[in-house]
Amino acid sequence: MVRKILVLGAGKSTSFLLNYLVQKSASEALHLTIGDINPKAFPAAITSHENCSVIPLNVLEEKSRKTAISAADIVVSMLPPKLHTLVARDCVHYQKHLVTASYINNEIRELDPDTKKSGLVFLNEIGLDPGIDHMSAMEVIDRIRDKGGKMLLFESFTGGLVAPESDTNLWNYKFTWNPGNVVVAGQGGAAKFIQEGTYKYIPYHKLFRRTEFLDIEGYGKFEAYANRDSLWYREAYGLEKVLTLYRGTMRRVGFSRAWNIFVQLGMTDDSYHLENSKGMSFREFVNLFLPYSPTDSVELKLRHYLKIDQDDIMWEKLEELDLFNPHKKIPFPNATPAQALQHILENSWTLGEDEKDMIVMYHKFGYELDGRKKQLDANMVVLGEDRTYTAMAKTVGLPVAMATINILNGKITTPGVQIPITKEIYGPILSELKAQGIQFKEYETPYLGYNPDSVAG
Amino acid sequence: MVRKILVLGAGKSTSFLLNYLVQKSASEALHLTIGDINPKAFPAAITSHENCSVIPLNVLEEKSRKTAISAADIVVSMLPPKLHTLVARDCVHYQKHLVTASYINNEIRELDPDTKKSGLVFLNEIGLDPGIDHMSAMEVIDRIRDKGGKMLLFESFTGGLVAPESDTNLWNYKFTWNPGNVVVAGQGGAAKFIQEGTYKYIPYHKLFRRTEFLDIEGYGKFEAYANRDSLWYREAYGLEKVLTLYRGTMRRVGFSRAWNIFVQLGMTDDSYHLENSKGMSFREFVNLFLPYSPTDSVELKLRHYLKIDQDDIMWEKLEELDLFNPHKKIPFPNATPAQALQHILENSWTLGEDEKDMIVMYHKFGYELDGRKKQLDANMVVLGEDRTYTAMAKTVGLPVAMATINILNGKITTPGVQIPITKEIYGPILSELKAQGIQFKEYETPYLGYNPDSVAG
Repeated sequence: MVRKILVLGAGKSTSFLLNYLVQKSASEALHLTIGDINPKAFPAAITSHENCSVIPLNVLEEKSRKTAISAADIVVSMLPPKLHTLVARDCVHYQKHLVTASYINNEIRELDPDTKKSGLVFLNEIGLDPGIDHMSAMEVIDRIRDKGGKMLLFESFTGGLVAPESDTNLWNYKFTWNPGNVVVAGQGGAAKFIQEGTYKYIPYHKLFRRTEFLDIEGYGKFEAYANRDSLWYREAYGLEKVLTLYRGTMRRVGFSRAWNIFVQLGMTDDSYHLENSKGMSFREFVNLFLPYSPTDSVELKLRHYLKIDQDDIMWEKLEELDLFNPHKKIPFPNATPAQALQHILENSWTLGEDEKDMIVMYHKFGYELDGRKKQLDANMVVLGEDRTYTAMAKTVGLPVAMATINILNGKITTPGVQIPITKEIYGPILSELKAQGIQFKEYETPYLGYNPDSVAG
Repeated sequence: MVRKILVLGAGKSTSFLLNYLVQKSASEALHLTIGDINPKAFPAAITSHENCSVIPLNVLEEKSRKTAISAADIVVSMLPPKLHTLVARDCVHYQKHLVTASYINNEIRELDPDTKKSGLVFLNEIGLDPGIDHMSAMEVIDRIRDKGGKMLLFESFTGGLVAPESDTNLWNYKFTWNPGNVVVAGQGGAAKFIQEGTYKYIPYHKLFRRTEFLDIEGYGKFEAYANRDSLWYREAYGLEKVLTLYRGTMRRVGFSRAWNIFVQLGMTDDSYHLENSKGMSFREFVNLFLPYSPTDSVELKLRHYLKIDQDDIMWEKLEELDLFNPHKKIPFPNATPAQALQHILENSWTLGEDEKDMIVMYHKFGYELDGRKKQLDANMVVLGEDRTYTAMAKTVGLPVAMATINILNGKITTPGVQIPITKEIYGPILSELKAQGIQFKEYETPYLGYNPDSVAG
């Protein structure tokens, strides 16, 4: 019997997801329905497939949403996060499984008793980050625990970057997903984590000056700044007693120090609107954040204000963005500083048609086994194929597609609102991802922790 | 016939207000009713006066609130700002005038048509700042305009400080009003102003590094950091065409540079709660915001992190606060960083029983008259008498008291929700304040503006 999959909101990051499901449709007896507000946006190779249909669907219209959900066996929601709740409630009502790549919100968490009563699997956070991070980390943590080891340290870093061959600017960065999210990344509260049993808090305006370095064999050096809340992972991963818990975002070395200039100036603020932004030059935009002077140049004021030396490489990064150009203009009225900055960055950082992105993930596991402290580092690099078949789309979409089929096939049966931290879920999916070239390399290293006394201890 | 004044919420800053009304009660035929949730808190000299009664009153209790308001001829609300709306609506209903020292909120602004229909005066922002700032500024601006002058520049600065004789610490600062407000001052959005026709925006984390200096004859040098929104005053004061508009908060020189350390560390954040704050030492609190190290001291980490030189006077300011003390503790659980910092500061910055506060206000008016650019500076210094009869209580309370009597006596008659920017209001009150020793000194200076080319132009 054919199993009917409804994919809602098939945007940019769903190329691999849809491809995978269509390719498996014959062998797995699947029919795929894509419900999207803009149904013409998909490649013919997918939409014209005999096991695929595309329907125009605005999920805010109750009747058509309910009709589509009631007709499916399982629902995959790739909609913007705030729209998942509507879909999830209908899934409870019509008794359908649900898969999303987004963080669980409170409304969805409240559906847990209902899903358990009905034997429904509501699997969330099964993309890249969150998703592959949960699965790959828990696979190692469970392995360490199975051997009798005791976790001491967990650090985890992810970055959406540009592939080395397409890495053509001084920032070693281009936008490979939602640029707006990149500009405001880190805002909304202090970053919180634990190092050697001590709580640490970093305010947003210091975030990009508290980085640490990471090496990936064959790919060189990276840096990472802290994510907002690392503490949540204690409970999720059962790491309540761990001494160090830190999650971060990876960039190429030097990015954060230069990005900090925008933060210090106040250009990443998305909370208020500029006066007269339409037609304002890039140069005038910079000058908004500098003291008034009738004579000094914007350049000198900026160098003096942020103490940027004459020979600092950061300066060339700013010039590369045309930041001081008096002719290039912000095109929209009432822009927030963040929106204006995004426009300036998109002018330089847009991925070319044939350029490739890159996903990097890096975990550190510190543990004690047989009285000795040990450390295992694991990292993953995934390269994109082009601007449509990106590493981002691959690493977000494939776990979602695989989980969907595994639920239909009864490989994932534990009901409830959940994230992929159990062997039942991560075991088969990590194997399948490996077959698709998405895998971690592991390295035994001396235990470093944050105490030099413990080195190789 | 005796006129009945109801004063609601007679807290700390009402000593002068109550005194003034009681002293005038015989000659002006006043009866004063103080309605407060804690009626025992007032000095006997006031409460035992024959023209004064005190009633226990919780303004959230509708019946007693309405009874008290309906019995009065005029209501003075010194309640926390969010409680004014309840009182204002009752004043509309019972047709009573209303006086407050707080900023007008939207709910009260909406009552404007009703007050005008009934001929009621709802006078707000008639304390110090807002209050004396409005009146003293408009008096000069109107005078310049009456002569045919055209306003080019308006800057205004206010500070609640400690009197020179009680100025005994390295910060030249003690808490003379709500310490919580001092700790979070400047937060909630970028500071916005105009200099020479150019908009300028300063994010919170740079606010205390963008100060300017001011001199007051006989009192020495001060500094000022920008208030959040200076642009609002364009409309209020009719300064739409002015080239420079800036409002700021005054401190003694060096305060802001040292305060910036707390801002940079993240200690002024009131948006999240610390883990395990109860019993945490001052030293441990500082360490929360510094990178982990198994060997380096909190002191060295802080010096390195914020690049504080060995001989920087800022360091002694931190030591004076006992910031590195491992024995002094934060006493409350779940403290925000701002609450913990406030506790540390109150440990050092509390005004002694016999110590005196000081209010300073400084205006700059730039204008063009008969084809020439001119500048007038005006400043005011008010010293407190002790910890009860503070300069703050005097400058907030006296204008409120005077306005109340002037409304009763028909000297202020224009109805509506308003602030004290008309001659009808500020004329008599500024004269009476002068009689109480609250007055501005004026200085003609060369027009400085922000263009050196215009000096003495």
